[in-house]
Amino acid sequence: MEEMQMKKYPANSAGAKMTARVPTVGPDDTIADVRKMLYEKASAFATLSYIYVLDKEGHLLGLFPIREVFRAPDNIKAGEIMNPYMIKARPYTDQEEVALLAIKYNLKSIPVVDKNNKFLGVVRSHTIMNILNTEHIEDLLKSAGIHGIAEKTLNASASKMINARLSWLIIGLIGGVIAAQITQFFETPLKQYFVLAAFIPLMAYMADAIGTQTQTLFVRDLAMRKLDLKKYLLREIKVGLGIATILGLLLYIIGIFWSHIYYIALILGFSMFLTGFVAIFVPIVIILILDRMGLDPAIGSGPFATIVQDVITLALYFLIAVVMLGIFAPK
Amino acid sequence: MEEMQMKKYPANSAGAKMTARVPTVGPDDTIADVRKMLYEKASAFATLSYIYVLDKEGHLLGLFPIREVFRAPDNIKAGEIMNPYMIKARPYTDQEEVALLAIKYNLKSIPVVDKNNKFLGVVRSHTIMNILNTEHIEDLLKSAGIHGIAEKTLNASASKMINARLSWLIIGLIGGVIAAQITQFFETPLKQYFVLAAFIPLMAYMADAIGTQTQTLFVRDLAMRKLDLKKYLLREIKVGLGIATILGLLLYIIGIFWSHIYYIALILGFSMFLTGFVAIFVPIVIILILDRMGLDPAIGSGPFATIVQDVITLALYFLIAVVMLGIFAPK
Repeated sequence: MEEMQMKKYPANSAGAKMTARVPTVGPDDTIADVRKMLYEKASAFATLSYIYVLDKEGHLLGLFPIREVFRAPDNIKAGEIMNPYMIKARPYTDQEEVALLAIKYNLKSIPVVDKNNKFLGVVRSHTIMNILNTEHIEDLLKSAGIHGIAEKTLNASASKMINARLSWLIIGLIGGVIAAQITQFFETPLKQYFVLAAFIPLMAYMADAIGTQTQTLFVRDLAMRKLDLKKYLLREIKVGLGIATILGLLLYIIGIFWSHIYYIALILGFSMFLTGFVAIFVPIVIILILDRMGLDPAIGSGPFATIVQDVITLALYFLIAVVMLGIFAPK
Repeated sequence: MEEMQMKKYPANSAGAKMTARVPTVGPDDTIADVRKMLYEKASAFATLSYIYVLDKEGHLLGLFPIREVFRAPDNIKAGEIMNPYMIKARPYTDQEEVALLAIKYNLKSIPVVDKNNKFLGVVRSHTIMNILNTEHIEDLLKSAGIHGIAEKTLNASASKMINARLSWLIIGLIGGVIAAQITQFFETPLKQYFVLAAFIPLMAYMADAIGTQTQTLFVRDLAMRKLDLKKYLLREIKVGLGIATILGLLLYIIGIFWSHIYYIALILGFSMFLTGFVAIFVPIVIILILDRMGLDPAIGSGPFATIVQDVITLALYFLIAVVMLGIFAPK
């Protein structure tokens, strides 16, 4: 029966990860009946943490922990002792959501029911541990732009590793060529004020660093599914303004000491402020688009967001430079 | 008793996360005795998944699952039915290692013993789930350079968020200034061959991307504690050579089409090759140093490695450019 379920549901769903080999009883069964059943069938069960109470049609009514089998009086009925308030998953619920339910509600295992509340099985504690571990590894790998390598990276051959790592790197190369094109376009002002070219790595790095922070927090918060987007964005705007203002001021001061030209310092400081502020929203927009398209936000969150960030940062930086030079620089 | 243990051991150790409220029996107790004990004391236990078998001095001899209480014959002794081969942790074992033991050996909970094999308690399944979840979040935040914010990031105030994010960003700013200094030092050749300046973001980005991939894999592999470093480095050398060669060739071809100057293409291609190859080892060296110093490798793996990577990459790139221009460029 388990085998069949494995085939019916998608690989990372509760349905694929559940087992039906758990003790189930009727609401009118007494604790003495439950004990008798356990003595007869204990070998058949994959886990004994909870006893599940089902009605005749197989609807899930409640559950009670194995402890009650030892503690409760002989003649009490399962329907009386059970806890009817349960956290449940559907077979198509994503495995990570199941695991987070267990964490959030302090549960060992999560029952799975169909849309009519018919009991299908249980995602048990060890499976939940494995899900948490796998999702952890996958998140880390995805955010680093490594694909097609599962858990056992340690034993993967060199050529397999190259394969898994190369696809995002080549996309990165294309992004870098676009960045080069943009830089080349501003050759004249950058040659004239070479200090601006010297600060290219700083601008790119800072925007990436800010963006990586945002996307890490946002992917996580989004996975928790309890996000009030308006409130969230409002706080991010405050955070972005705070960070961008502090960094912009610092770079303005550094620029003054570095170049002794106030409008160069102004270009550096204002560019840091604006690209830093924009850097907060680039990953949020990318992740929201991926999420709406039904794709895993973690896929695009790593290297892809960085490339987009780099291109936007450089374009903004050079545009600010050209405009400000046009206003402030002596003709 | 649990309270006292919590105080005795460091916060993220097995000792701080264990409970002593589990059923324990002697090796000569029969299954009938075990049942009697469970009927009497079931309420006192935090978890009933396993029954632990201790000798008179409290040394851990073995364990058996609750299932045996229902399945085994009345007169069989705990010492006969128990599994004496157990995975155990010490009270000072890091909580993440405990969780990974449970995953690796397919266990619900992990017993904790002192150096004389005296039974101290059990890290139970729900605690292991919480550890896995917490470590996941912490790893993500650390690798993004976010500090001092725990799980509930969602509700942190804007000023608290700015605080948590700013420290690494300011270190990044300092790194960027060093990068600017290096770039400024090579002003003359970069102005003369501006195409080389245009490719600065590409060089920096690619080295960072390769390094991020390596450090993500390496931190993870290191946490699994089953690393044959020599074998690992040998494979990384192969992987590095493979990736660096492919990317170097691609950038050489792009350089030909871009500049139509063979030695510019050669500088771009060879710099990509060398910085890409070096990029594999920068995070490995940083992480090994942090690990040897007893620091959590994840701390420095994110933004810090990127800054070091950027500075090394630019220095190498410009040096290669100067040397190759000296050899190939018409005087």
